[in-house]
Amino acid sequence: MNLKRYLPVLQWAPQYSRSQATSDLVAAVIVTVMLIPQSLAYALLAGLPAHVGLYASILPLVIYAIFGTSRTLSVGPVAVASLMTAAALAPLAEAGSSEYIAGAVLLAIMSGLMLTLMGILRLGFLANFLSHPVISGFITASGIVIAASQLKHIFGVQASGHNLLTIGQSLLQSIGDTNLPTLAIGTGALLFLVFSRKYLKSLMMRWGLGARSADIITKTAPILAVLVTTLIAWQLRLDTQGVRLVGVVPRGLPELTMPALDWELWQQLAVSALLISIVGFVESVSVGQTLAAKRRQRIDPDQELIGLGTANLGAGFSGGMPVTGGFSRSVVNFDAGAETPAAGAYTAVGIALATLFLTPAIAYLPQATLAATIIVAVATLIDLPALGRTWRYSRTDFGAMLATIILTLGHSVEAGIIAGVALSIGLFLYRTSRPHSAVVGRVPGTEHFRNVLRHDVEVCPRVTFLRVDESLYFANARFLEETVMDLAISEPELKDLVLVCPAVNLVDASALESLEAINERLRDAGVRLHLSEVKGPVMDRLKSTELLSHLGGRVFLSTYEAWQALTGIGGSRPVLKKTA
Amino acid sequence: MNLKRYLPVLQWAPQYSRSQATSDLVAAVIVTVMLIPQSLAYALLAGLPAHVGLYASILPLVIYAIFGTSRTLSVGPVAVASLMTAAALAPLAEAGSSEYIAGAVLLAIMSGLMLTLMGILRLGFLANFLSHPVISGFITASGIVIAASQLKHIFGVQASGHNLLTIGQSLLQSIGDTNLPTLAIGTGALLFLVFSRKYLKSLMMRWGLGARSADIITKTAPILAVLVTTLIAWQLRLDTQGVRLVGVVPRGLPELTMPALDWELWQQLAVSALLISIVGFVESVSVGQTLAAKRRQRIDPDQELIGLGTANLGAGFSGGMPVTGGFSRSVVNFDAGAETPAAGAYTAVGIALATLFLTPAIAYLPQATLAATIIVAVATLIDLPALGRTWRYSRTDFGAMLATIILTLGHSVEAGIIAGVALSIGLFLYRTSRPHSAVVGRVPGTEHFRNVLRHDVEVCPRVTFLRVDESLYFANARFLEETVMDLAISEPELKDLVLVCPAVNLVDASALESLEAINERLRDAGVRLHLSEVKGPVMDRLKSTELLSHLGGRVFLSTYEAWQALTGIGGSRPVLKKTA
Repeated sequence: MNLKRYLPVLQWAPQYSRSQATSDLVAAVIVTVMLIPQSLAYALLAGLPAHVGLYASILPLVIYAIFGTSRTLSVGPVAVASLMTAAALAPLAEAGSSEYIAGAVLLAIMSGLMLTLMGILRLGFLANFLSHPVISGFITASGIVIAASQLKHIFGVQASGHNLLTIGQSLLQSIGDTNLPTLAIGTGALLFLVFSRKYLKSLMMRWGLGARSADIITKTAPILAVLVTTLIAWQLRLDTQGVRLVGVVPRGLPELTMPALDWELWQQLAVSALLISIVGFVESVSVGQTLAAKRRQRIDPDQELIGLGTANLGAGFSGGMPVTGGFSRSVVNFDAGAETPAAGAYTAVGIALATLFLTPAIAYLPQATLAATIIVAVATLIDLPALGRTWRYSRTDFGAMLATIILTLGHSVEAGIIAGVALSIGLFLYRTSRPHSAVVGRVPGTEHFRNVLRHDVEVCPRVTFLRVDESLYFANARFLEETVMDLAISEPELKDLVLVCPAVNLVDASALESLEAINERLRDAGVRLHLSEVKGPVMDRLKSTELLSHLGGRVFLSTYEAWQALTGIGGSRPVLKKTA
Repeated sequence: MNLKRYLPVLQWAPQYSRSQATSDLVAAVIVTVMLIPQSLAYALLAGLPAHVGLYASILPLVIYAIFGTSRTLSVGPVAVASLMTAAALAPLAEAGSSEYIAGAVLLAIMSGLMLTLMGILRLGFLANFLSHPVISGFITASGIVIAASQLKHIFGVQASGHNLLTIGQSLLQSIGDTNLPTLAIGTGALLFLVFSRKYLKSLMMRWGLGARSADIITKTAPILAVLVTTLIAWQLRLDTQGVRLVGVVPRGLPELTMPALDWELWQQLAVSALLISIVGFVESVSVGQTLAAKRRQRIDPDQELIGLGTANLGAGFSGGMPVTGGFSRSVVNFDAGAETPAAGAYTAVGIALATLFLTPAIAYLPQATLAATIIVAVATLIDLPALGRTWRYSRTDFGAMLATIILTLGHSVEAGIIAGVALSIGLFLYRTSRPHSAVVGRVPGTEHFRNVLRHDVEVCPRVTFLRVDESLYFANARFLEETVMDLAISEPELKDLVLVCPAVNLVDASALESLEAINERLRDAGVRLHLSEVKGPVMDRLKSTELLSHLGGRVFLSTYEAWQALTGIGGSRPVLKKTA
């Protein structure tokens, strides 16, 4: 059982059938065709030689097929992680240099170690720190930065920068050097890709193709763009006209790469590796869960950490770059009928064959074509209407989202995500630090108690009933102290204060100390503190403390019982139970 | 009104009476006598010349009397902030050097700016990030480190270090150089102070003094130790025997000091200043609230930030060091009968007179005496039983506390407090990321629904009722997704899933997206999602979104209504209300 948990391959491989194999193979062929341009393009985006993207699309896929729990997730280089890789490595080495490539390997290995460790320690909940608005804002902003960063390839100019300001400035300075053949290739590819994305599907359906086939063929448009522009570049010897091509890449499969054992470098990359890991994990799990649900399958987030972690270790040791589950690729894999993770392994074989036999052809592939595929791919990541939706729904969530977007666009991806996380945690603690609470009074003639501000209820100036609608913990412990003491001061006649606790699911050590302090301070002020409707588990814990023996007042099972005992009003029936 | 909020002095000064003045003056004399040795000692602890402590006990007290809301808080140098000051400055300059003194001034000013700004922006809730166990562990560990750091003065040796390991190592290496006259003075003072703390009060009460007077006289024991040992040192010319004395200090009042405008230094000290600010604020507010409650007065935490902030600005600009409200001093001030903050201003006058006229005498004060007063003072901070109490009450709180203590003792005060804060937030989010939830069934023959695992209830395999006992927000949004999808997968017959929401006080944007995702995934799996018992405010917000129009199922006012509509079981009465 336990082995099956850690090796999900054992759950499906023993029953692997011929029909499943056929489905998986078909899906693998389609995904391979889609993955070749993507992996080249994302390596380019990460500032790496194009073949590194291919390397990162072989071993990781095989490993994920063994350790991953999603049946249809397609692992490999993705846009956002590639941008984060570039941002992390830019300050350390020149893009494309051997130190830079070693840095990418190290990022993949560190990210792999972190994810695997988080999986073993079952720390998947760390991903919860990334709220939806922060992730959504981050991905939108990253998409914009990525698209902007690719414009230099479309125009055929030199430019640099990792945020919108520096990229824009750099582009403006160099726009005069635009290379017209490059611009022609780039805009041509861009227009073709946009056209195929928008109209190709309906066109092919009009030609009689089924919706699903039309959809899948549309998704393979990038490889067509790659083929055609490569042929043009080769025929017209465009490299002599200043068009930058991918160039000669090493032929053959990746070799075993050992990471740099440079402790200082590890420290410098630690935060980046952690952010790449968590962002990648969150994206990947969300895709995985969406797809799994469609077939009533489930994925195990903690095991997914191990699956993605080992995949990244594989990427690192085979000279690749950080990988994770990609959205569009996984959807294609799913739609093309992949039934088991074996489809991923078959895709790896496809990429390996491409690496062995197609690399000479890749030499003539214009970088502008890859840039065009990136721009079209990330355009789908940009979700500006989400800003409006979040604004309308929640101002605090919007604040965290906006801060993430502004910092990602204007400063750096890392600053953006860190600010977003810090802000969403801070705003949440702020929100719960002022929980809803109400002074309640008795609905006349009943045993019910309601907010005195909203209902006509009986009250007694000597006794105040305060209901708190939240668990009591460190973030609101001080609020409770202030609220209670304000009540005690504002009501000079007050003799008894009852804390009504039916919504208190937890009293942590901070809140316990606050209750002790409240009890003592109230006693100093001549007021007794009582509790009512304390939940069973909370009461069990309080019994192990000295609070109950120090308590100035009593613990009542029901608020009505407290009302009868303390106010002497409306005692239509005798007090039945008492707890000391 | 608003002016009174920002200038609390206007609340009491206009009605200031002769009898109040008398009470305040008496308290001020007693606190002055107590504060002189304390301020000298804490300056020493911070690695500063002794007179800096006096400087920090003049202007800040006057300013706090104007801006502070506590009637009895006594502001000045305190032990923990002094230790944190020393730890912050040690890496930057040699203790006692002019750069070091300038660093202390800058820390006070930065801390003053931060606190004032937090007060103006009403960010007092930031102090909530420090849970009680973390603060308690931090203060205990700081007390131990402080006591250990003073042993070098008792033995008259040179030693350094800012954690238990380095201090211990340094002491062991130098213990052979112990200066016997210093040791005699130090242990003598120590024994006298311990004796007076333990027995002097009861002794004096046996001599016929009232409990309160006896208590106050006991608290002035340190000044007696200072006087006696100074006289001895002067008579015996102990400085010629290797006993380190405070030495000649500048006579006269502090002059206006301008902080260093060294941007790099500001950056280096920023984290330290923030931690000193928040720790000082938390200590101070907790003392202030405890004392205010005894007289049914209140303090305003946000205005306290401004009070402490401006006091620290005063400390900085008058050549002092970071200050905050001290526990023992404030209690003495309160017990001695102080009625308004004017007592603090009078104390400032007392310290100013001491600075003008007593400084020549201070030259012969042995440092060992000050070290003895520090050790005895911080002994009361050390609360080891709190470890046991916290362990018994809550393992997670204990974890945060232990991490704080170990890191404070073994690494540094800053590492201790940062780890404690990060761990308590992390553990809290972890705890709420797995909220209590239960599949509920109908108590036969009633309209009530209870946990199927705990009660004998009716269930229907086609309909699952899931009750979530927590607000839905980013930390548990993913948990909700997993829980719901697991239910959908484990129950193949499932057609309807009802989310029972009476305990959901909030649905943030993350949880909203999760609900959308759950709804879609359930629809893909052939299950309809329904909601029941959604609270009014939550429903109002959901109505502004598209969730309700996308919802596969319906929104029911009551769970029983959902039961009747979906199961067709036990419809003892017709469905009365419906919401689309």
